[in-house]
Amino acid sequence: MSLQYALELFGTFFFAISGALAIQEKDRDHDWFGAGFTGFVTAIGGGSLRDMILGSYPLVWVGDINFIYSIIIGVIVAIVFYKYIVGLRRTFILFDTLGIAFFTVLGVEKSLKLGFRPEVAAIMGMFSAVMGGVIRDTLTNETPVIFRKEIYATACLGGAICYLLLDFGTSLDRNVNLLVAAGLIIVIRLVAVKFKLSLPALRR
Amino acid sequence: MSLQYALELFGTFFFAISGALAIQEKDRDHDWFGAGFTGFVTAIGGGSLRDMILGSYPLVWVGDINFIYSIIIGVIVAIVFYKYIVGLRRTFILFDTLGIAFFTVLGVEKSLKLGFRPEVAAIMGMFSAVMGGVIRDTLTNETPVIFRKEIYATACLGGAICYLLLDFGTSLDRNVNLLVAAGLIIVIRLVAVKFKLSLPALRR
Amino acid sequence: MSLQYALELFGTFFFAISGALAIQEKDRDHDWFGAGFTGFVTAIGGGSLRDMILGSYPLVWVGDINFIYSIIIGVIVAIVFYKYIVGLRRTFILFDTLGIAFFTVLGVEKSLKLGFRPEVAAIMGMFSAVMGGVIRDTLTNETPVIFRKEIYATACLGGAICYLLLDFGTSLDRNVNLLVAAGLIIVIRLVAVKFKLSLPALRR
Repeated sequence: MSLQYALELFGTFFFAISGALAIQEKDRDHDWFGAGFTGFVTAIGGGSLRDMILGSYPLVWVGDINFIYSIIIGVIVAIVFYKYIVGLRRTFILFDTLGIAFFTVLGVEKSLKLGFRPEVAAIMGMFSAVMGGVIRDTLTNETPVIFRKEIYATACLGGAICYLLLDFGTSLDRNVNLLVAAGLIIVIRLVAVKFKLSLPALRR
Repeated sequence: MSLQYALELFGTFFFAISGALAIQEKDRDHDWFGAGFTGFVTAIGGGSLRDMILGSYPLVWVGDINFIYSIIIGVIVAIVFYKYIVGLRRTFILFDTLGIAFFTVLGVEKSLKLGFRPEVAAIMGMFSAVMGGVIRDTLTNETPVIFRKEIYATACLGGAICYLLLDFGTSLDRNVNLLVAAGLIIVIRLVAVKFKLSLPALRR
Repeated sequence: MSLQYALELFGTFFFAISGALAIQEKDRDHDWFGAGFTGFVTAIGGGSLRDMILGSYPLVWVGDINFIYSIIIGVIVAIVFYKYIVGLRRTFILFDTLGIAFFTVLGVEKSLKLGFRPEVAAIMGMFSAVMGGVIRDTLTNETPVIFRKEIYATACLGGAICYLLLDFGTSLDRNVNLLVAAGLIIVIRLVAVKFKLSLPALRR
C-alpha cells in the first residue's frame, strides 16, 4: 500500500468524521441518516467534483469500495463517540486540516498524472480539498467554509503551488514534495486559526 | 414499452409536478418560469447526478426526448390545475412517494447493469430518488427534504437493499423484485408520514 | 481568432467581473479569495455544467488556458477598480447581459455541433448562460438570479429558440444567426429591467 493510497483513505476517514459532526454545530437534533449523508458528501464531494470536471472515470470511491467503508467507519466513529468528540473543537479543526492538506496534494498529483496543465492542477487540488465542505455547507444552509473569516482555501492553493514549484523546479522525490506541500498547508492553516488571520477585504 | 420504461416516464412526470408545486409552499407569487425550472430540476436532477457520477452518457433525458416532454406536460398540468392540486397535501406526498420508489429501484438496476458493485448501486439508487429534490431545495433555500423530520431517504436506502437481497439471494423475476422493493419504499414512507416516524437523533 | 472564440473569452471576462462584484452586494467585507472564487465559479459554472451534462470533455476552461487567464484578469480588474465599478449598477447589468447573451447562443451552437437535438440545445444554451450565476447565488445564500422578479432566464430561452428557428428555417450565415439571437436576448433583458417586466405568477 503506497503512501498516497494510505493518505487518501485516512483523509476520507477524517473528512467523514468532520462532515458527520459539522451539522451538529447548527442543528442539535439531527438524525443518524443526516450525519451519515453529510459525512459521505463531505468525504467524496471534492474528489468527485474534481474527477467529474476532469472526466476521470470511474470516480475514486465508485471504483474502490475501500473508500465507502472508510466513510462508513468514520460516520460510525462520529456517532458512537459523539459526546467525546464534539466538545473538542481543536481536534475537529486538526482532523479537517489533515484532510484538506492530503486531499490538496493528491488532487494536484492526480491532475498532473492525467496530463493537465499546472494551472488546472492547482485549481483541482484546491477543489479536491474544499469542495466537499462547500457542498456540505450549501446543503445545510451554512455560509460555505471558504467564505468564512480565517484563511482556508488560500492555504490549499498555496500548498498546491508549493507542490508544483517543487515538482517542476527540483528533482526531489515525489513523496518529499507531497509531505512538504501538505506540511505547508497544515502550518498556514493552524497559524491562521491560532492568530485569526484573514485576507484583506474588498472595501470601497 | 417495458414496465421499467413506463415507470421511468411516470416517475419523471410525477417529479415534475411535485417540483413545480414545491416552490409554492414558500413563495406564493413565483412565476411560471420558476415553476418550470424547479419542475425540470426535480425531475432530472437525481438521475442526471447518478449518470454523471457513474460516467454513463448520454444522460437519460438528453438521449431520449420523451423525458423532456414528460416534464413539460407535468409542469403544464401543475400550472393549469394549480388551485386544485395545491390544497391536496396528501396527493402531493403520494406523487412524490411514487416518484422516489420508482427512481430508487430503477437507479439500482441501472447501476448493476453498468457493472458497478451492489454497495455503489444502493447509494446510486437512493441518489437517483432524492437528489433531484435536494437540488431543488438547495436552489430555493429550503432545508433539503432529506434532512427533515420524517423518514425519507432512509426508506429509499431500505428499498434499494431489499432489491439487492432479492436480486442476489433469490431467483425471482426482475419485475417482481422491482415491484416488491418499490412497494416496500412506498409502505415505509407512507407509514412514516402517517405516524410521524423519524430516526433517532444525535444527542450529547 | 473566430468571432465565436472572441465572444466566449469576452463573456468569460465579463462574467468573472460580475461574479467577483456580486457578493459585495450582500457582504461588504468579503476577502479577495472570496471575490476570486465567486468570479471563477460564475464564469465557468454554466459552461462546465453544460459540458458535464453533455459529456463533452475536456471542459472548455480545462482544455484552453486562455479562459483561466481571462478570469484572473477579470477578477483583478474587479478588485482594483472596485470602488469605481461597484456604484455603476447599470454597467454591472450591461456586463451581465452581454455575458448571458453570448453564452446562450454559443451553448446552443456547441450542443448542435455535438449532435444533440434542438430541444436539448435550447435548454443547454440557457444553462450555459444562467447556471454560473445560479451556482454563485446558491453558494452565497442569495435567491438565485433566475427566481428573481425581472425576466432573465426566459430571455435566454427566447434567444435560444430564435437561434434555432434561424438555423433550421433560413439559410443565413451562422454569424448572422448568432448576432441576431444574442441581440434579441440583450433587447428583451434590457427592456425587462427598464420597465420591470416579469412573467405572470402562479396564484390560487
